[in-house]
Amino acid sequence: MTAIRAAPDIPQARFRDRLAAARDATADGGLSALLIGVGPDLRYLTGYVAMPLERLTMLVVPAADNVPVTLIVPRLEVDPARRAPAIRGGYVDLATWEETGDPHADVAALARAAGAGRVGVNDTLVASHLLRLQASLGDSEFVSAATVLGRLRIVKDRDEVETLRAAAHAADRVVDAIASGRLIGRAEADVAREVRDRLVAEGHETAAFAIVGSGPNASSPHHEASEREIRAGEPIVLDIGGTLGGYGSDTTRTLWPNGGAADAEPGDEFRGAFDVLRRAQAAATAAVRPGVPAEEIDATARQIIDAAGFGPNFFHRTGHGIGLEEHEDPYLVAGNREPLREGMAFSVEPGIYAEGRWGMRLEDIVVCGPDGPDLLNRSDLDLREVDGS
Amino acid sequence: MTAIRAAPDIPQARFRDRLAAARDATADGGLSALLIGVGPDLRYLTGYVAMPLERLTMLVVPAADNVPVTLIVPRLEVDPARRAPAIRGGYVDLATWEETGDPHADVAALARAAGAGRVGVNDTLVASHLLRLQASLGDSEFVSAATVLGRLRIVKDRDEVETLRAAAHAADRVVDAIASGRLIGRAEADVAREVRDRLVAEGHETAAFAIVGSGPNASSPHHEASEREIRAGEPIVLDIGGTLGGYGSDTTRTLWPNGGAADAEPGDEFRGAFDVLRRAQAAATAAVRPGVPAEEIDATARQIIDAAGFGPNFFHRTGHGIGLEEHEDPYLVAGNREPLREGMAFSVEPGIYAEGRWGMRLEDIVVCGPDGPDLLNRSDLDLREVDGS
Repeated sequence: MTAIRAAPDIPQARFRDRLAAARDATADGGLSALLIGVGPDLRYLTGYVAMPLERLTMLVVPAADNVPVTLIVPRLEVDPARRAPAIRGGYVDLATWEETGDPHADVAALARAAGAGRVGVNDTLVASHLLRLQASLGDSEFVSAATVLGRLRIVKDRDEVETLRAAAHAADRVVDAIASGRLIGRAEADVAREVRDRLVAEGHETAAFAIVGSGPNASSPHHEASEREIRAGEPIVLDIGGTLGGYGSDTTRTLWPNGGAADAEPGDEFRGAFDVLRRAQAAATAAVRPGVPAEEIDATARQIIDAAGFGPNFFHRTGHGIGLEEHEDPYLVAGNREPLREGMAFSVEPGIYAEGRWGMRLEDIVVCGPDGPDLLNRSDLDLREVDGS
Repeated sequence: MTAIRAAPDIPQARFRDRLAAARDATADGGLSALLIGVGPDLRYLTGYVAMPLERLTMLVVPAADNVPVTLIVPRLEVDPARRAPAIRGGYVDLATWEETGDPHADVAALARAAGAGRVGVNDTLVASHLLRLQASLGDSEFVSAATVLGRLRIVKDRDEVETLRAAAHAADRVVDAIASGRLIGRAEADVAREVRDRLVAEGHETAAFAIVGSGPNASSPHHEASEREIRAGEPIVLDIGGTLGGYGSDTTRTLWPNGGAADAEPGDEFRGAFDVLRRAQAAATAAVRPGVPAEEIDATARQIIDAAGFGPNFFHRTGHGIGLEEHEDPYLVAGNREPLREGMAFSVEPGIYAEGRWGMRLEDIVVCGPDGPDLLNRSDLDLREVDGS
């Protein structure tokens, strides 16, 4: 396997800037404070990657500049918290709570000091914490912090784009390795294990998913790799990804192992559909530029697939944003009129599925550049007819 | 590496029984329905392991017997949902929503059909869904479903105990393999990678954590494995776990690599403290039996450590429940007066930490048997003085 390519680190001072922007946006949004638990928002604002366990870790970001930003952590996690860039930089005060303490009351007190009223919570905060905070702050209105932070996180800076690119290239190498190896006679789950091992070997911290849908299983978009044995003369939808440097990879290619036999090549129906899919994916990608509404990218792919008579066979949106989360804003779906902006990053992934018979999907991660699309993936998008034996 | 030991499957009919018990408990708890999103509660009730993505998947469990239980899933995940035991068994109706649909409104309609009023949501439901459901069901009161399901999940049946045992034994083999291999001169993170690989090779689906705290890092209970090089003559807190058959493993041993040199053996201070820890862990474990309050197990360990003068150096609770979650009820912590019951499963894990100098912890998973403790782990609890070179 090839060597690990390093992703750029996010410079420490970037967290100071992000926190300042978050405070401004919180005030502009009419909120008194943000209450941010473990997850991507916390990582975005502080660089702290906390364990996703049941003890409350929470960043309180007051809108008012004269009230400090505070991170509350369980005492037994104070050492990792101290190493977070925003703590090291002195942009955030650190407070701890003891095992028999009441951290929800501590957060409520900080929220009241910030003015209480309307407060924003991170979208991934779990109900066990949110319900307790709602009980502790009975007079406050709780809204999604995404209304504030979404505007910041949706546009990636240069370091974030380069990290996404490093993740995409790592995933490309895994796709190419899988496509050039043995497939026929192996269980889908066995190929999925190889995908995960290779993603980690390529520098991913986590290999979050490895969809290996062969034959009829290719028609289920979120198929879990099963014990089904892959055969010659059928498609494989290979949809893989994870995180590298905290940022997501996510790419899909359609493979066709033929075992070197002429009678195991794709038939006209499949080839015809794939040609439609290939054109739809390319046209949707080419339509990416600042100012174009997100739903128009979806419509571009859908029109081509509809016109070829496959409309009912493409029953999911065309894409999702990607960054610190696998799926985040912007979503490329009918009804989302948000104009694309330079620095937005998202998947473009139309698919065509014949229920119980076959399926196909192509997915690239695309960044909206100043004049058009910046494609982060670069592995071959054509139908991968491979030997596979 | 040794062969994978299979964990027993949970029989399909068990989900029918669990759903029936959940409906009874929901009615008894004064709730009209449970709204259960992706996570351990959903797995417990239906066997369905859904992708933890942003599209809403939700099980609606009405208290009333004459209203069906319904699972709502995104259309592109209907195939994996169909394979869930509770769907295959016909205990739950399956409904799908399309990409441009409003699944929160669909859930709200089902909750209203169940009577609305007070509804319970799973503790791991994320805020993005909970806030939308609260907006859609403005007159309802939302409470934690743990008040209902916690009573069921906290007692493990025989199949669950045997799955936990299989997970524990797999983790034991990993601990023993690490203790007998090279440690000195390796980065903590490198050892952590080996732990993860070995847990997967031993049949774990996920290797959720691998704490490798060496030397001064051993004093930080939730230390993340770092690039620090392990040396001879210092302790290593090795705390590892993940899931096997969906159920958690979690075990901690304290290692001391000496490189075969007499001058790298532990000193009197460390040996003395370890003796205290060993006795505290053994006494706490021995105190496990039905009827004993959870906090008494904590107090048993704490009294021994306090009496030896290490009270301030043991600043976390003694244990947590384990099952479909790494950490769940019952918590062994001061203030938790809940009596232990046969079938409860939890960690017993006191620790002693000298800030910035050294640390030690011992952790076993213990099930409360009819007359006393059933120890799931069986690897040696003594200080592991190993060569490590």
